[in-house]
Formats: sequence, structure tokens, C-alpha cells
Amino acid sequence: MSQIPEAATAVVFDKCNGPIRVDKSHKVVQPNELAPGEVLVRVEYTGVCHTDLHAHKGDWPVPPKQPLVGGHEGAGRVVAIGNGTTTTLKEGDAVGIKWLADSCLNCENCREGQEATCPLAETSGYSKDGSFQQYAVSFARHLTPIPEGLPLEIAAPILCAGVTVYKAIKQSNTKPGDFVVISGAGGGLGHLAVQYATAIGLRVVGIDTGADKKKLLASYGADIFVDFKEHSGDGALIEEVKRVCGGVGPHAAIITSAGGAAYNDALEYLRPHGTLVAVGLPPDTYIKANVFFTVFKALRIVGSYVGNRQDAVEALDFAARGLVKPMIVVEPLANLASVYERMEKGQVAGRIVLKCFD
Amino acid sequence: MSQIPEAATAVVFDKCNGPIRVDKSHKVVQPNELAPGEVLVRVEYTGVCHTDLHAHKGDWPVPPKQPLVGGHEGAGRVVAIGNGTTTTLKEGDAVGIKWLADSCLNCENCREGQEATCPLAETSGYSKDGSFQQYAVSFARHLTPIPEGLPLEIAAPILCAGVTVYKAIKQSNTKPGDFVVISGAGGGLGHLAVQYATAIGLRVVGIDTGADKKKLLASYGADIFVDFKEHSGDGALIEEVKRVCGGVGPHAAIITSAGGAAYNDALEYLRPHGTLVAVGLPPDTYIKANVFFTVFKALRIVGSYVGNRQDAVEALDFAARGLVKPMIVVEPLANLASVYERMEKGQVAGRIVLKCFD
Amino acid sequence: MSQIPEAATAVVFDKCNGPIRVDKSHKVVQPNELAPGEVLVRVEYTGVCHTDLHAHKGDWPVPPKQPLVGGHEGAGRVVAIGNGTTTTLKEGDAVGIKWLADSCLNCENCREGQEATCPLAETSGYSKDGSFQQYAVSFARHLTPIPEGLPLEIAAPILCAGVTVYKAIKQSNTKPGDFVVISGAGGGLGHLAVQYATAIGLRVVGIDTGADKKKLLASYGADIFVDFKEHSGDGALIEEVKRVCGGVGPHAAIITSAGGAAYNDALEYLRPHGTLVAVGLPPDTYIKANVFFTVFKALRIVGSYVGNRQDAVEALDFAARGLVKPMIVVEPLANLASVYERMEKGQVAGRIVLKCFD
Amino acid sequence: MSQIPEAATAVVFDKCNGPIRVDKSHKVVQPNELAPGEVLVRVEYTGVCHTDLHAHKGDWPVPPKQPLVGGHEGAGRVVAIGNGTTTTLKEGDAVGIKWLADSCLNCENCREGQEATCPLAETSGYSKDGSFQQYAVSFARHLTPIPEGLPLEIAAPILCAGVTVYKAIKQSNTKPGDFVVISGAGGGLGHLAVQYATAIGLRVVGIDTGADKKKLLASYGADIFVDFKEHSGDGALIEEVKRVCGGVGPHAAIITSAGGAAYNDALEYLRPHGTLVAVGLPPDTYIKANVFFTVFKALRIVGSYVGNRQDAVEALDFAARGLVKPMIVVEPLANLASVYERMEKGQVAGRIVLKCFD
Repeated sequence: MSQIPEAATAVVFDKCNGPIRVDKSHKVVQPNELAPGEVLVRVEYTGVCHTDLHAHKGDWPVPPKQPLVGGHEGAGRVVAIGNGTTTTLKEGDAVGIKWLADSCLNCENCREGQEATCPLAETSGYSKDGSFQQYAVSFARHLTPIPEGLPLEIAAPILCAGVTVYKAIKQSNTKPGDFVVISGAGGGLGHLAVQYATAIGLRVVGIDTGADKKKLLASYGADIFVDFKEHSGDGALIEEVKRVCGGVGPHAAIITSAGGAAYNDALEYLRPHGTLVAVGLPPDTYIKANVFFTVFKALRIVGSYVGNRQDAVEALDFAARGLVKPMIVVEPLANLASVYERMEKGQVAGRIVLKCFD
Repeated sequence: MSQIPEAATAVVFDKCNGPIRVDKSHKVVQPNELAPGEVLVRVEYTGVCHTDLHAHKGDWPVPPKQPLVGGHEGAGRVVAIGNGTTTTLKEGDAVGIKWLADSCLNCENCREGQEATCPLAETSGYSKDGSFQQYAVSFARHLTPIPEGLPLEIAAPILCAGVTVYKAIKQSNTKPGDFVVISGAGGGLGHLAVQYATAIGLRVVGIDTGADKKKLLASYGADIFVDFKEHSGDGALIEEVKRVCGGVGPHAAIITSAGGAAYNDALEYLRPHGTLVAVGLPPDTYIKANVFFTVFKALRIVGSYVGNRQDAVEALDFAARGLVKPMIVVEPLANLASVYERMEKGQVAGRIVLKCFD
Repeated sequence: MSQIPEAATAVVFDKCNGPIRVDKSHKVVQPNELAPGEVLVRVEYTGVCHTDLHAHKGDWPVPPKQPLVGGHEGAGRVVAIGNGTTTTLKEGDAVGIKWLADSCLNCENCREGQEATCPLAETSGYSKDGSFQQYAVSFARHLTPIPEGLPLEIAAPILCAGVTVYKAIKQSNTKPGDFVVISGAGGGLGHLAVQYATAIGLRVVGIDTGADKKKLLASYGADIFVDFKEHSGDGALIEEVKRVCGGVGPHAAIITSAGGAAYNDALEYLRPHGTLVAVGLPPDTYIKANVFFTVFKALRIVGSYVGNRQDAVEALDFAARGLVKPMIVVEPLANLASVYERMEKGQVAGRIVLKCFD
Repeated sequence: MSQIPEAATAVVFDKCNGPIRVDKSHKVVQPNELAPGEVLVRVEYTGVCHTDLHAHKGDWPVPPKQPLVGGHEGAGRVVAIGNGTTTTLKEGDAVGIKWLADSCLNCENCREGQEATCPLAETSGYSKDGSFQQYAVSFARHLTPIPEGLPLEIAAPILCAGVTVYKAIKQSNTKPGDFVVISGAGGGLGHLAVQYATAIGLRVVGIDTGADKKKLLASYGADIFVDFKEHSGDGALIEEVKRVCGGVGPHAAIITSAGGAAYNDALEYLRPHGTLVAVGLPPDTYIKANVFFTVFKALRIVGSYVGNRQDAVEALDFAARGLVKPMIVVEPLANLASVYERMEKGQVAGRIVLKCFD
């Protein structure tokens, strides 16, 4: 295929919280250096996720590899496959580098399709270098095939944000026609959750604030909107959510917003047998569930980590069929440090996708 | 059938925390006074549950009916059926009065088999007079048929304690061969949970303390026992539970013990994708779940309230086949006040079943 | 409420295959004649189903009640409730009379939500007089509440045709994004199946014939159409269905067409682990499944009878939200005999709904 | 590890139906000849299955590789692993060679845990040489780890017969306490099915004939036995099965016997919503299901092919815990031709396991 250079551009930091460097002469792993099972991907677009920021800050219980090339929403094409690799992938194929870079596919977790909790799991841009570079090494058995026709910049944010919310909805114990609350509906995860939920026939109640968000969500078919600023009194939000869900509350709530209050509100507004799905990995946040009411109302709380390989294929398929479309802003790869600054200040609307080549 | 007296014995209190009276001339509802759907049951045995004690103390968020005849583990026989009742029950049938006295069978909850959360649910010995009396009125559509051949004093504790843990196991997301921890394994709920779990092929890990409990549980086929007093250091219990469950912890934990610590330990020792099932209704107790680890380990927390009518039939069937046998102590009905005193002091081992007739 | 007359119009036959009479002085059961649990419904509209024709012809293994007032897609309003009935229904409520008139709600089948196979089940217009009359008696616990705002003539065909296909889809082992074939897609059951399937995010492949059907299905969002007349060679239809379903066939096939060939074709075009759902009750038709291939491809065959009460509520809810709309032709009640004649000749397109009052 | 010889014993045939040769100088693939992903196994014991006989006779729709070393119930130890293989296996590990030798682990089927229907699946002793030899090449990602302590001659028949019936039970839509019929209960598949079913709390009804079989099954805890020779009149067997299952028939039937009649009987004696599970791959056998009754009784027919890798691990775990024990007769590897002869004549009781080394 294309010429593979000796060196190319990567965005690197040496230590957590240290400077973020744009390294234009980062060594590219050459085809003959690939181990069996490894694949070299020419990354075209790569989304930026809050997890990348956590990796840089090192504020999670387990620190990342250092030095680190972050990134785990990489969309590109296969340029080389390690000798001895058994795979149906071939050069030129469009593929996605997702958060879960690899897993053993042989342990109980993997055999059951719960690959993310494999004890040998590797994570892109965390335990392994990721997609904030032009040429990334990843693993044949975990790369996600991207349907031809789906623009790579659209595919990128599906690979983490999209899969994550798609999986969360799958675990919400709902059936078509049920009411589901998306908390943080206008955000990076939320706006995708709303689209997936409407595409499969759920009745979406978006919680967020402002006329713009309301309009955005309505454009996705989420016709019920609860503006949390308009229901800020004691228990007012809870009453309003119950009211718009047939008077008895929703069947499920997907909590994509980071604050702890959203979880505890959900436990109050859910209808009996309702399910709270927690997504995202905020540090130092707790769900505090009263045992009496959890039992009496027969509630369920589900922690939903990222999807597996099949979930990723399905999530992309929705995007390929035009049913889900992430709101993206494309910027050059070199902007990463600036993007992090804006994320910290809460100045980012939609998903930022970095373009790796000019 | 048998002669129905004008009056009979009932144990009553007029106000929460007030005196408990043995009323030997309590009015018996006569057959012609029964509304359509109502059934008069001659109660032979009735178990005593912690919920009855909560009713008397009035320490739950919603107070009971007052004056109140408590009791919701009543086993007896049908002596009269209200005119206009559509039922396959007939006089002389052995039936059980369970916690859920009635529900509408027509709302979304009921149609989905989640009868306990019906908005029109009535509860025996709480919102309606219960089984601490010789003749109790209950509802045809919710009485549980008791298999012929099963002694009524054995059936009694199955009607609440048995059904509750049976349902909890059903909701534990386990399959045969999986490891399940029963916390409080030697207690009133726990010892039944152990028997149901082994009967369906789960690998039971009992947590409790003392050689007697260990021996008791082994007699049920629960060969793995963790004595919490022997693993009391910082995180020691958690490590031990993980160790005995293949090094990675159990697939599920059923928490029947009242203290808050057991819930939080479970969140730490569960294997990824594991399920914590909360049963029992302790007031003022909280599960405090760290969101990061709940998501990262993909854990589930399930509040399991009482079973539905089908669960009750199934739970009794296990007892009728001799697979589950509650440890009971039979005492006269008039002992109820004394039983409460002993329960408060933690002096009750096994389930106390009251005999309603001499 | 409204005045209840002594007599009104009903369409009756005395014996199977005998004349169909429009009886304008059919006795109306009076409120004081209703047993506990019974409800008198003023029927406004009632759909005509093939089952009604089978009842008249008496060609099913079990014969209907005779004389018989048929009909089991009745939509009307409650005008009286039998004394002693426990129900949340009240006079004036819009309700539907569905195929399953009553069941005991207490046997294993009913407790599990499989009401149609209750040994005590009664069927409208078959074992009990049905909705081809102005005033029909039915059962409080099985009448389906119709959402206010949904026109009764639209609700009528949902009560049997709609519920039946909705349930079939529920039992198809599919998830959103999966391919599902609807065989007989343009017919009375099929056109509703297509709408339900698209509403819940399935990828529908319609099998039928002709440009009109193709256009109709496309208007429902079913963009893949296989015209069976264009693929009539040996195995041609099977190859075409596989081709349009990613080359490997659909995940499920719902067979609403009456001929036996459609079942056997499905067993050939389904992808491994695919599910064939049989709906409808054609006499003397067989599925002939080769054991080797059924096992080797791990196929499933599911007989889907009518839905339960919850399915009926859900099916109507889709119609109330405008997601599913039956194609109907409204005619006067007195036309029933003529409708049967046209049905026998295959001259009926869409669902005929009879108007019971002028 | 142990010395790997240049040549060893294998049992081979060159063409279907041709002579079966004991080749004592069969070439052994040397460690440096193994491709990445391949493993050399020193086979100690290998069971003989009817599928092996079908392979030799070539009477299945797709013919096997020729010349062929058959066998797919091989239990032995790893002696070499191909360079470049990613695996947690190591030399000396006890492993099983099962029917499914390999699959891609990346297609939709594999990602969903339905590895047997992978389009790239390879089968031991059919599309690839199998375990009727002292040294066999297999695939790291599909070899089943055998628990230490489980004798290899016991593990062998679990690898196909055990997994197959274990999976069939998993797909039977039953819960503990349900009635399940095992047809052919005393046979090679059946006697294992009975043990798995009782171990997970099902109520087993064995259908077979003779006092010996009855006694054998009772020793497994299957206390309900129907001798088909004693109920041979018209419909007599069906009535008897219904009778012993609460009067209404079993919740499921696992058909392990080869004749077509057993399938059709099952469709008649199953209770409503019951499930027929077909296992085994008899050529030219058909299930003929009447559509009317399949729908009216809401029956399910499930083709259950072999289990996946997780099923194999679970099935062995039951054997390792002593809950399931195959009846075996051990003979030397060289006896294979004689074993086939006896199988054809129906002279084999229990499972024959060949010992590969003296």
C-alpha cells in the first residue's frame, strides 16, 4: 500500500501533568517489527475523550503508561499486518482503534463477551500508546472494521462515546416504548445516547438546560425535555420527571453527567423495577442508595463499562445507516494541548475530532 | 366445612409500640360478610418475621394500619369463599397467606408479574390484618396453594422468608456452577437461601461465624464457609472471599444480613460483572457505591423485594420435594409478645412458627 | 351513562356454514344480569379477521359455540359493570375486546404471563359471543384500555392483528439493527408487522409482490423489498433473501402468509442461529424441518400465539403514538356476510372494520 | 517437556468407507513446523462418537477431508506451542480437543459466542485431522483447559457428548424445578444429559426401556422413568409422559435418540410454551410440525449444535466436581475399526474411550 515512513507525527507526554509535545519525528514501527497479531494503522482522525484528559492528569486509581501517546477513538486504514497474524483484515481496510486495544479472548470474561474486564486487557492511549499519532500499532483481533461509506471523522467518536452509550442502553432493561431518561442529554455522551435510544424505539426524556439543547434534542426525535434549571426547588426535578413519564417515572435512567446528584435523583424518580445505568468514570463520586427503598421499589443499578467488539460493530452500523450522527468539530492533531485546556474550562461543545494528516 | 365461630383468638395491638393483646373474643368475619374475591382462612400456623416487629415498632417510612393483627406467613385451610368470587380454590384447600395480600392484577406492574409494586397492593399484617389469628380474611387471587403433603408448619416460613430468598437468587444473574456468596448464611433468611442455591446447582459460599453454623451449612451442601471473625483485619474478609472463589471473587452476593458493611464488602469482593442482591428492609441503611469502580468492574446492584405468586408456588414446591427445609421452633400463638422481645435481643435462632390452635 | 336498550343489532349464525343473520332485536344483557367480573361494552367498531371466517366454516380442530356472534377486534366503551367486580375500569372508558376474552389469572400459564394458553381461557367470538354486535358482554380483567385520542376504528384491528404481530416480533430473538424478513408483508398481518418492526429499529425485508406493495412498504420505512414473482426459479428466492441480508440471510423471519412453502423457504434462508416465527392458524399446514440442518445451523422455530394483556396495551400504545397505522376500510356491521364472501375470494385488501352504529 | 518422536501411531482411512489402518509410523508434526496459533498435543485418551462413524461412512451432506485421522474427544497434554502464538497455555497443561477445532473469533457468530457456526470453523477429525492418534495438532485458542484432578479418560467424552447435552439443556428455556424429558435417557448422550439436568435442579423424566436403564437413571437422581415399550399403543406414550408431568406434560424435551418419531411425540406431549431441543445430526430425519398446534400451543423447536468454548469449560467443571460421570469402557486405540463395527450393530453400551499409549 502507501509508503510507510521511518518517522511521523505523534502527540506525547513524558509524565502525567507534564508538557504535551507534538513530536514530528516519532519513530514509526516498521512492518517487519510487528509481532504476530499486531497491525499498523495509518490514523486519519481521532476523537478526544475525557478519559484522555484523565490519563494526562493521572487522577485515576491506576496510572497510565508513561511516556504516553494518548487517544482511543482512532479511525484509519490498515497499512501493515504482522507476520503470522491470523485475520480476515487486509491492507487498506478502514478500521477503528477503540479504548479496549486488546484482550486475551480466552478467559472467562472474554469467552462470555465481557472483554473489557479481561485480566489481560490492554487499553489504547492508556496501557498502550494510542491514536494521537499518524501511525499506530494495534491488535488485529480487536480492531473494529469500519463500514465503507462511513466518513472516518464520523466513525471516530462512535468508537468510544458511541459504543459506550449504546452499550449502556443495551443494559438498561428496557423494551421499545419504554421511557428512558438521558441525564446530560445535550453533552458529548448524552447527544449520542439520545440518538441511539430513539433509533430503537425508546421514549426519550432528555435532562439538560437551555433552549438550544432542547431544540437539538427535538431534532433527534426526543420530544420530552426537562430543563433542570427550571425545576430546581426541593424535589422539583424528581416530580417533573415522574410527571412526564406517565406520572410514575421512567423505566430507566442513563446517567452520563459527571455529578453525583444525578445518580441519587434517578433513584428517586425511577418507577418500580427501574434501572439506573452509570456510564463514565468520574473519580471520587458515589451513588448512595437507601437499602429500604432500593428493595421496596425493586430498583437496579448497573455499571456499564465500554462495549465489546460486537457492540462496536453494531454501534458503527447505526452511524453508517445515518441513524446516529455525532456533532463534531475537526481540528488539527497538533491542537491537542489546547483542546485539553478548553475541556478543563468546560468550553467544548460536541466532540472534537483531530485530523492527523493535513 | 368446619363450624365457623362468631369469635376466636387474635393477637392485636392498638397503636405502634403499644401493648400486644391476646384477644380471645376477636370477631370472626362470617361467610356472608365476605366481599367477592375474599376468602376466610382457618390459620393453623404462622411464622414470625422481622417485618412484623417493624410493624409493631412503626419504624418504617409508611406506618401500618392500626389497630393491627400482624402476621404474613400464615398456613391454613379455606373455610369460606365470598359470593361472586371466581376462583379454582375450594373449601378445605391448604393455602398460604403471604406478605402480598392482594394486588390489582391489571396494572403494568401486575401484568408484568411484578405484583409487589402494584400501586393498589395490600400487605398482610401491615395494610390489612394478617395471620396472627385463628380466622383471617384474605384474597382468593393471591392466596398461595400449598401442596398436599407439605406440613403447614414447614410451609409457613417459606411464604415470606423462603419466597424472598428464592426470588433474590433468581435475580442474581447466575447460572449453575457459579459462585454465590450468602452473607448471613446461618440466619433466618440465609439458611434458606443456602438450601435454594445448592438445590439449583450454584456453588455456595456461606459467610457467618462459628463452628455450629459451619456444620449446619455443610449439612446443606454448602462446603465453602468463611468465618468473618477469622478474617477481621483490614480487607481480610474481602481477600478470603476472593480466594475461595477461584481467586477472583463470586459471581453474585446475596446480602441477607442487616448491617451496611456487608453491602460495601460485596462491592469489593465481587468479580467483574458480578451482582449484589439486597434483600430485607433495614431502615436507615445505605449502599455507598463508588461510581468509578462500579462502572470499571461493570457491577450490578439489585434490590429484590418479595416474589410474585408464581415465585411463591415454586418456592413451596422445593419444600414439598424435601429440597429445602426451614429450621423452625413451634410455640403457641399467645407467645408473640415474648417472641418480639427475644428477637430484639437477638436471642432467636431459626424461625419461630406460632401454632394458632391447641 | 347512555340508555341501554332491551334489544339491539347483532350478526349471528346458528350453525357453522349456516346462514349469517343480521338480528336487529338481539337481546341485550342488562346491567343487573351481569355476573361479578362481567362488563357490558357498547361496541362502536369491530375488525374482521380470518379467524372469524374459520369460526363460521368450522374448519378448526375444535368447533366454536353455536349459535355464535363472532368478532374479536371490538372497540367501544364501557356502559355497565357487574356488581361485585373489582376493577379500575369505569363507565365511559374506551376498551377493546380482543381474541382472549378471559383467563383465570391464577394458573401457571397466567402467572407467567402466558394467558392465551390458560386451560380456562375463553375466546371472543368463538367460545363466547364476540363483538359483531352493538352491545357485548366481556370480562373486566381482560378488556384492554384504549388510550384516549386513538380513534376506535384504528384501535380495532390492533386488538388482534396488531397484537399478534407485535408479539411475534417480540419472540423473534432479534435486537435493533438485525435483519427480519416479513413474509406476506403487504397483507393484513404483514403490513402491521412491518410497521412495528421498523418502529423498534429492525431492518425489515418485505416479501410480497407488485409495485404497489413495494411502494406501500417503502412508505413504512421498509426499504428492502423482495418480489417473490421475480425470483421464482429453483432456490432463487432463497438466494435473493440471503443476498439482501448481508449475504448470509436474516436473523429472523416472521411468516404471516398462509402457504406451507414460506416456512420451509425460511429454514433455508435464515442465517445460523436464526429464528422462524410462525403466526396465524392455518389448518392442515406443516413445517417440515430437516433435523441435520436445524441442528447444524442451530435454528429456532417459534409458534407465536396471541399476545397477553400487557402486549395488547403496548401494541395500542404504538398506534396511539402514530407509529403504527392499520390500513382500514370501514363498512356497516350488516355487511359481514358479504365481507366473508370477498375474503374467501381473496378480494380484500387491508383490514375491514365494521361500524356498529349508523 | 517429553521427547517428541518423529513418528507415532495414528488410525487413518484414505477414503470414506475404505479400510481403517493403524499406522504406527505416522509423521508427527515437529515443534518448529507449527504455525503461529498451533499447538501439538500428546493425546492420552480419545472418545468415540457417532459423528466419527458418519465421517468414515461419508453419509453427511458435506464430506470430510480424506485421508483422515478422525476423533474429536481427545484429552491429553500440550507438548509444543507454535512460535508467535499468544496464549496462556503452557507445556504440560492438560487440554481437550473438541469437535470445534478452530474458529476465527472475529466474525459476528464468534463475537456473539456462537463459534460453531463461524464460516471459517474447522472441525477435529472432519475438516482437520483429529485425536485418533498419539500426537495431534490443534489450535491454542480453541483447546479446552482440563481441570487438574479430572482423569483424562473421564474428560474425553465430556468434550463432545457432555458439552453437547449441557448446551442443549441451556437452550431448553427451563428453570430449576421444571420437568424435562430426556428421550434416549440411557444412551451415550442421554445418560449425561440426565446427570447435567439433575445437577441444576431440573425434574428429569427419562424415556428409555428396561429395568437396567431404569435403575441406572434412578442412581443419577432421575426418579421418573417412562419405559416406551410399556406404553406402545396409539398415543399411550404421550399420555403417560403428560401424566407423570403434572398432567400437562413437560416444560422441555431433549431428543437425543436418532429416530424421527421421538421429535413428533414431543410436539404432542409438551405443555404449552414448551421447548423441543434437537441434538445430534441424524441424516435424512425430519421434524414435521403442524403449524396450527405449534402456534396454538406456542411451542418452540430449537436446534442445538455443539457448545462454545465457555460451555466446554463449564461442562468439564461439572465433571471435575463429581456431579457428572460418563460411563466409559476403555480400549486400545488400535481397536477403532472394531468399535465402529460394534456401533453399527448397536452393540455398544456407554461410551468407548480409546487409550492412545500402552
